Amino acid sequence: MESKVAVVGAGQSKYGESVDKSVKELFLDAYIELINSVDNGLEPREINAVYIGSLGSGGFQLGNLSALMAEYVGLPGVHAVRIENACSSSGFAFIEACLAIMSGMYDVVIAGGVEKMRDVSSLKAKYWLGVSGDTEYERLAGMTFAGLYAIMANRHMHDYGTTREQLSMVAVKNHKNAFLNPKAQFQNKITLEKAMNSPMVAYPLNLFDCCPTTDGASAVLLCKAEIAKKFTDSPVYVAGFGTGTDYLALHDRETITSLKAAVLAAREAYKKAGIKPKDVDVAEVHDCFTIAEIIAYEDLGFCERGEGGKFIEEGLSSMEGEIPVNLSGGLKAKGHPIGATGTGQVYEIFNQLRKTVQKPARQVKDAEIGLTHNVGGSGGTAAVTVFKV
Amino acid sequence: MESKVAVVGAGQSKYGESVDKSVKELFLDAYIELINSVDNGLEPREINAVYIGSLGSGGFQLGNLSALMAEYVGLPGVHAVRIENACSSSGFAFIEACLAIMSGMYDVVIAGGVEKMRDVSSLKAKYWLGVSGDTEYERLAGMTFAGLYAIMANRHMHDYGTTREQLSMVAVKNHKNAFLNPKAQFQNKITLEKAMNSPMVAYPLNLFDCCPTTDGASAVLLCKAEIAKKFTDSPVYVAGFGTGTDYLALHDRETITSLKAAVLAAREAYKKAGIKPKDVDVAEVHDCFTIAEIIAYEDLGFCERGEGGKFIEEGLSSMEGEIPVNLSGGLKAKGHPIGATGTGQVYEIFNQLRKTVQKPARQVKDAEIGLTHNVGGSGGTAAVTVFKV
Repeated sequence: MESKVAVVGAGQSKYGESVDKSVKELFLDAYIELINSVDNGLEPREINAVYIGSLGSGGFQLGNLSALMAEYVGLPGVHAVRIENACSSSGFAFIEACLAIMSGMYDVVIAGGVEKMRDVSSLKAKYWLGVSGDTEYERLAGMTFAGLYAIMANRHMHDYGTTREQLSMVAVKNHKNAFLNPKAQFQNKITLEKAMNSPMVAYPLNLFDCCPTTDGASAVLLCKAEIAKKFTDSPVYVAGFGTGTDYLALHDRETITSLKAAVLAAREAYKKAGIKPKDVDVAEVHDCFTIAEIIAYEDLGFCERGEGGKFIEEGLSSMEGEIPVNLSGGLKAKGHPIGATGTGQVYEIFNQLRKTVQKPARQVKDAEIGLTHNVGGSGGTAAVTVFKV
Repeated sequence: MESKVAVVGAGQSKYGESVDKSVKELFLDAYIELINSVDNGLEPREINAVYIGSLGSGGFQLGNLSALMAEYVGLPGVHAVRIENACSSSGFAFIEACLAIMSGMYDVVIAGGVEKMRDVSSLKAKYWLGVSGDTEYERLAGMTFAGLYAIMANRHMHDYGTTREQLSMVAVKNHKNAFLNPKAQFQNKITLEKAMNSPMVAYPLNLFDCCPTTDGASAVLLCKAEIAKKFTDSPVYVAGFGTGTDYLALHDRETITSLKAAVLAAREAYKKAGIKPKDVDVAEVHDCFTIAEIIAYEDLGFCERGEGGKFIEEGLSSMEGEIPVNLSGGLKAKGHPIGATGTGQVYEIFNQLRKTVQKPARQVKDAEIGLTHNVGGSGGTAAVTVFKV
């Protein structure tokens, strides 16, 4: 499709544990960076609408969240909508913002997300993560999120020979990338040995195969493509997007070694963008667990089905590889403030394509096409967006 | 604006206490009636997207709710998004569905809502209602929702001479209407004396000034206006819509005798539809408390500011009046399953304009223009939509 929407600004709070900042203040951090990132300036009154993704805003903290975020940053009166699609909440908030612009109703729109997970009890956090899967068949039967992805990992290992080492290699790569990201939750490199020997959580997933719980916010500024140059000489265009859904409970699905929602989303996004998977220069994918990144390589067509393990082992997703994946550190090391993750991915791709990442060492070279892949829960929903400069 | 979107089907579960039905089953009830309401038939595979409004889906029951509802009614794979804008969740879900169609991405879309409130403790229900206001300034200070509207009512009485009798007259009218609605939670008439003498909740609001907690679901079918006649010979068109937001906490607002979010929403909706308030033939407004309906008359321009009390007293909003309001019984007597209320209002207007309400005695005569007015929380958000045949 012809690009009808452009991204012209982006901001992200520091991800991690923010004991001293409320949800509002985290979002304000992202908003301020967003405003400052608009090269030619932006008057807040030019903003028509705000879409905020959040999973547990009400449960962790606050309701009617989008209006609340809008008022707090000084935008009372705007069209404001909160989206909850589990861990893909702001991936979908971004797409709803695109639709709003494409409808002709709004010209300048913020899409963002926020989550504050670390100041509630771990039991409550676990409850909120649990509701992202199927409550009746899975959560109430005692299934945890690590458990769901462990089932997928076991089957992937059985069917394709994927190894425990390959899982840990994803963690090692993403920590290495996050080491160069001042906004990441974990800015430490880890060795393969350390990753392999961390405590087991749900076989075969150990501690270093799991993303952390995170406080954080992100926000990006979208506008009608025709007016993008008003805001910046280097906009990033939305080349195409797609979404998909699937049965929430694993037992209902056609397969558990692939997320059908993500396959549907990717197919639609590539078609709309008129590109093939190998055209992607840089990608942020939803690595809530290391196995999820390996499955994402396959679902996105970066490699053949069953070859995801080899893809990481051969370094093809590393900074120097064929398609660098999760240069931000991904959910695994940058952190996973659930509702903020989707637009946080867009923040990274926006800066990668504009060559404005904070540390040059993390800047991918000559990237023209970027992709974000945001999954809700254990694959009940997925949103994939392709960007180009 | 030229009508780009049509409503061609609608369904609603029975509102009330549904001990024997889950959230899924309530939504299925609405979906089945929706499917059966499509005069020329609808193949489920024609549906491209599902937008579900819900306030507490995660807290009361389940997460990633829209995908879950889609899979349960047999629509796995569709674009599915859950909207949470407090009590205006499905009013906004409806508008997001309109934007999705206007964007050109989707042709046939379901907008709906669901809430199951009566099988959680009243403390938990109160918590979930509380988060719809401002948590930091109001809820945590002990403010209840009846308390917030009581403050508005007191000021309205002080400034404009609105009386306690006039508040009760709203309850009497809405119960009278609900008596004719087989899907209403309360199908009993009440006398003015009974309404006046019910137990005080928060002065001046007594028990009969407050809407109940309700289990229920609603869903409507929208499509691109050009293809509406494929589904029915009598579509209802979306003539215009508008939204607004305001500071969540009352103390931050310009006024507390009017909801600015609703005023903004109405102004935009009327402008888009090219009509004046007096052109409205029938309306469903957000009467979470009786004072809210009186303020709605004024915010929507059905009468002058301060004249809302007289508007009900003179019978202008009754079945036989100038602009019949809440013929369904409204939130007060039809019930208020929070996330379902917005599209539940559309369900009523759809049937009123098509002359297909279940009981002829509740059918307004010769109505061509209908309006829905859905408020989030104590006025943090509002959505107004104008319909025409």
